[in-house]
Amino acid sequence: MSIETISTNTAFGGTQGVYRHASSATGTDMTFSVYVPPHAEGAKLPVVWYLSGLTCTHANVTDKGGFRAACAEHGVIFVAPDTSPRGDDVPDDEGYDFGKGAGFYVDATQAPWAANFRMRSYVEDELAALIAAQFPMADMARQAITGHSMGGHGALTIGLRNPARFASISAFAPIASPLACGWGEKALGGYLGPDKAAWRAYDACALIADGARVDALLVDQGDADQFLVEQLKPELLREACAAAGIDLTLRMQPGYDHSYYFIETFMADHIAWHAERLKR
Amino acid sequence: MSIETISTNTAFGGTQGVYRHASSATGTDMTFSVYVPPHAEGAKLPVVWYLSGLTCTHANVTDKGGFRAACAEHGVIFVAPDTSPRGDDVPDDEGYDFGKGAGFYVDATQAPWAANFRMRSYVEDELAALIAAQFPMADMARQAITGHSMGGHGALTIGLRNPARFASISAFAPIASPLACGWGEKALGGYLGPDKAAWRAYDACALIADGARVDALLVDQGDADQFLVEQLKPELLREACAAAGIDLTLRMQPGYDHSYYFIETFMADHIAWHAERLKR
Repeated sequence: MSIETISTNTAFGGTQGVYRHASSATGTDMTFSVYVPPHAEGAKLPVVWYLSGLTCTHANVTDKGGFRAACAEHGVIFVAPDTSPRGDDVPDDEGYDFGKGAGFYVDATQAPWAANFRMRSYVEDELAALIAAQFPMADMARQAITGHSMGGHGALTIGLRNPARFASISAFAPIASPLACGWGEKALGGYLGPDKAAWRAYDACALIADGARVDALLVDQGDADQFLVEQLKPELLREACAAAGIDLTLRMQPGYDHSYYFIETFMADHIAWHAERLKR
Repeated sequence: MSIETISTNTAFGGTQGVYRHASSATGTDMTFSVYVPPHAEGAKLPVVWYLSGLTCTHANVTDKGGFRAACAEHGVIFVAPDTSPRGDDVPDDEGYDFGKGAGFYVDATQAPWAANFRMRSYVEDELAALIAAQFPMADMARQAITGHSMGGHGALTIGLRNPARFASISAFAPIASPLACGWGEKALGGYLGPDKAAWRAYDACALIADGARVDALLVDQGDADQFLVEQLKPELLREACAAAGIDLTLRMQPGYDHSYYFIETFMADHIAWHAERLKR
């Protein structure tokens, strides 16, 4: 496994890098960013994953997420993958909510998507192994995961399926239940086919109903978010967590929309929350 | 004077807005951004101006500057103008360092630039009056100015020419002396003609040599900045300030380049520095 360094820049005493590699999971080149905070030589640092939302690449949060100051303060590595495979040979959809930029963190089973749209395997397995191999200061025994919107769905579902790997899970305005919204029905139907039993591994509320358990979840949600009622539906996550006895902190943030202005505002809180749970 | 609101988003408890208006100074529509932090009704807040560098619009710092958390903490308004007039009718140059995106904060006197490239009057007079009229919480008796690269040059020169208006002045990697670098020679020669006596009002070091005085200046400069030696030349500002008895804090920052990763790292320091000097 080798990676190509696209750029590195000093920031808050650490290094913000952007990297590319040939992915066997997706069959394409994939680009991702990693921020490594200042640290003592030989130190091992916990890793926070951030999964981005529809239409995004690694660059949105890298430019606008406002995470570096908090990561430097708490000494955590921040990894931001892309949201889908890319390239002229990758199938696409005319909508912004399916195909490129909209991988939904699933392993597709339906043609023509199954060959490339394997973002579950990419994030859960391949990129994690790559980070472990290429960033020797990354302590893969201490990982947390967060994300925004589609990436919030990704963080919740990947976290719920892998509770031993992720010490903490949070999300910004996540799609709480793809089974119960238009974005999810289109994406999971397209990638996984009509049998909704196959969707349940990719739905946070269904995973919890089916027995997945974690100690705690942190979710921030703007109450002026234009996608709140039709797509995000945090009340479904609240009901699922209440029924399962999961300690969900769901903060409805007055006046905030779905943008990175919302994310940057609460990013330091999330980094601190994860850092507390990632202490040795 | 009226303005059109392009967007507003809640961030860190305040409002990040982007606005457009018909400028009489430039004869074009001009776009700018204003962040108003959370504040008590009726409160009057100081104003920090940020002038951007070559190729930038208001959007670069608005997206990547990392100023909102500090502005919210200290209760200061942040104003970010564009760097030049824009539009199909505005003359341009094929280089990135002259014409659109490169107004250099001068009032051009040479054809074809003189009709539109009047960024000195725009920032010093027109936009200041517009902010005063449209943002009643802005306390125009308490202003500070900063900027990056070409905009650092703008902040230094506008600040040095208007010491009664700006309580404090800082810069990130400024062009210290347009008279003494290729960017400056091209821009000031193009906008102002060959008589270098006319350039001196747009050169921080010349302004100081010619008698401009302020109490203190804060400058951060990355020592890995690719433009440091040929274009920025902070040593010229150090010499001018030493000769004039101006208290210059020039911090050479190890490993930092010319990018917004550098700016975001030290932005909170600059906001705090200005806020301290803007206290009632």
